[in-house]
Amino acid sequence: MVELFNGLKSYGSFELLKKIEGKKPFFICTIATTSTANIPYITGAGATPELMEYTPAGDVELIIHGELRCCDIPPQTIVDGASAPTPAMITKAALELTDVPFLIVDAGSRIKPDVPCITASNKPIHGKDIRTGEAVENPEKIFNDSKIIGRELSKSNDYLVIGESIPAGTTTALGVLTALGYDANFKVSGSMPENPHNLKKDVVMEGLANAGILDGIGNIGKIDPFKAVAAVGDPMIPAVAGMVFGSTVPVILAGGTQMASVCSFIKAIDPNFDFSRICLGTTSFVANDSTSDLFNIVSQIGDIDVHVVNPNFEESSNGGLKNYLKGFVKEGVGAGGAMLMALLLGYSIEDIREKVEEICE
Amino acid sequence: MVELFNGLKSYGSFELLKKIEGKKPFFICTIATTSTANIPYITGAGATPELMEYTPAGDVELIIHGELRCCDIPPQTIVDGASAPTPAMITKAALELTDVPFLIVDAGSRIKPDVPCITASNKPIHGKDIRTGEAVENPEKIFNDSKIIGRELSKSNDYLVIGESIPAGTTTALGVLTALGYDANFKVSGSMPENPHNLKKDVVMEGLANAGILDGIGNIGKIDPFKAVAAVGDPMIPAVAGMVFGSTVPVILAGGTQMASVCSFIKAIDPNFDFSRICLGTTSFVANDSTSDLFNIVSQIGDIDVHVVNPNFEESSNGGLKNYLKGFVKEGVGAGGAMLMALLLGYSIEDIREKVEEICE
Repeated sequence: MVELFNGLKSYGSFELLKKIEGKKPFFICTIATTSTANIPYITGAGATPELMEYTPAGDVELIIHGELRCCDIPPQTIVDGASAPTPAMITKAALELTDVPFLIVDAGSRIKPDVPCITASNKPIHGKDIRTGEAVENPEKIFNDSKIIGRELSKSNDYLVIGESIPAGTTTALGVLTALGYDANFKVSGSMPENPHNLKKDVVMEGLANAGILDGIGNIGKIDPFKAVAAVGDPMIPAVAGMVFGSTVPVILAGGTQMASVCSFIKAIDPNFDFSRICLGTTSFVANDSTSDLFNIVSQIGDIDVHVVNPNFEESSNGGLKNYLKGFVKEGVGAGGAMLMALLLGYSIEDIREKVEEICE
Repeated sequence: MVELFNGLKSYGSFELLKKIEGKKPFFICTIATTSTANIPYITGAGATPELMEYTPAGDVELIIHGELRCCDIPPQTIVDGASAPTPAMITKAALELTDVPFLIVDAGSRIKPDVPCITASNKPIHGKDIRTGEAVENPEKIFNDSKIIGRELSKSNDYLVIGESIPAGTTTALGVLTALGYDANFKVSGSMPENPHNLKKDVVMEGLANAGILDGIGNIGKIDPFKAVAAVGDPMIPAVAGMVFGSTVPVILAGGTQMASVCSFIKAIDPNFDFSRICLGTTSFVANDSTSDLFNIVSQIGDIDVHVVNPNFEESSNGGLKNYLKGFVKEGVGAGGAMLMALLLGYSIEDIREKVEEICE
């Protein structure tokens, strides 16, 4: 582990970061929804279960307009009366600080945000409950369309930073990781202090059974990756992977265990994929989380650098942000990667935290 | 009139071109449809009247995939048994030659292309027949959303090149120009050798009457531009204008009289708009067309540079391309601006013509 900047810990090499330091990024937030998130107690996204589905749309509306249009109550996580703001606030802070260009990719969300979006297929389709074993319609099409997006946006930028917003995305991540042969049970992250691992595992197992895919642990490389996503994944995974394959420049996958799942999908598509041209950028809240194990998952997949940004919210006067330290939210909307990008562009972790506080007010 | 490159004639100054020569552009094709195009004999777009509506979708599918997905017969103009290929072939040639990044903006089209699109509002709505006087739903929203697109895409590019594909777009252009007080009767272009000016005029007048807007000739600056577009315009116009206002870099409006109509809309929104940061890039087929008068329209609006590219199709062995010389098609899908961009990037007009011929085969 090395420290390139104050507030950043890098696991693996920071060769790629050295290459893109000070260079011009393009930020993409990929949104999607899955009915898996309607399973009670599975996700902490949304102020209420009814508002959960509005989280991705609300997140990007906050980033772009600084106000909500699809609903009235901002995305947040509430547990036992305490709440923490959506990580979109962190991403918005990094984008405003750096003036990095960005666009939203809609990989398939039920609630359409009131912002311009790139559609990752001509009719982006909301993901189904993975318990059906039929979670994503035509992931290959989402993948191929997203390759075009990655290709075009990489032509005039030095690197891409790709985040996501999809409630219950860690459960679908577990689904894909498991289907592809990885042991990720009790290892994926979650947006609540108590991570409902048994529920996530049961949901995934039911989906795998209904899809006719047995628990694939140890069967790495044996299941078609598109079948895995079609069965127990979500629309975000093939969209982000497609952009990675389409991109001709380095990519920071802005997220934790969900982006690890994207890496497992990438490796299943191309076992010789060169992971030195991409990396994970996430938050210390994911990296230090005792209820999950990002590093274990990543190490099963390959030699993938993980860069961890700590915005030192303990020093914040904002109670909602301090709740991140108690296990609320942890990551999302590309927050970790967005902060990493800001560090690479010369902003200090204090600049970033202050901007987040300003935006939260 | 001056010649900066072989094949290019510039009317006005070429100061802007000098500034962006060799610099990095981003190309945007804005697609839309309007039921105005269903009026018999008004447009030459599409191999048959039934296929007309598939033209914008087909155009961008050809550019991106090199094949059609929304229908079986490529967009083209057929008159008296002779046909000319869609100008998308010219645009595709310029994009392939230069490797310039590009994306499609859907401002409101009935047939959705099977390509990734940026939606210019969260539900892009097809334009209605302007005879109703209620042509475009909420042009202000299209405009504001498109500002965001222009802003973000201009951040990491040196200039934007914006084209359009919308059948009957010259009629809606006439509508907006007339509503805004310009005398454009018998001056807008058209895709057929015989330009149905009387029909276009009648259609516009019916729309203006139904919208309660009298023939506004001479009333420049008196009618709200958004009301004009809402009454007798099309969704492309506020989308392209929005991108121009959002952009922080120069913009080449890739087109003829339709882009002149965009300029009239821009001027109506901001009478002090600095037209030296944008210009028109079009084809010699529009500029030399005796059935229309681009230069007259432009001169009524303001001091706007017009750059005219002549691909010398008389030297082509392709009969379809030679029909451009007989008044078929003339312009569209940003063909003129795309060629201008290729010239600015160092390709010769011969390089461009040869690439177009290669693509047509």
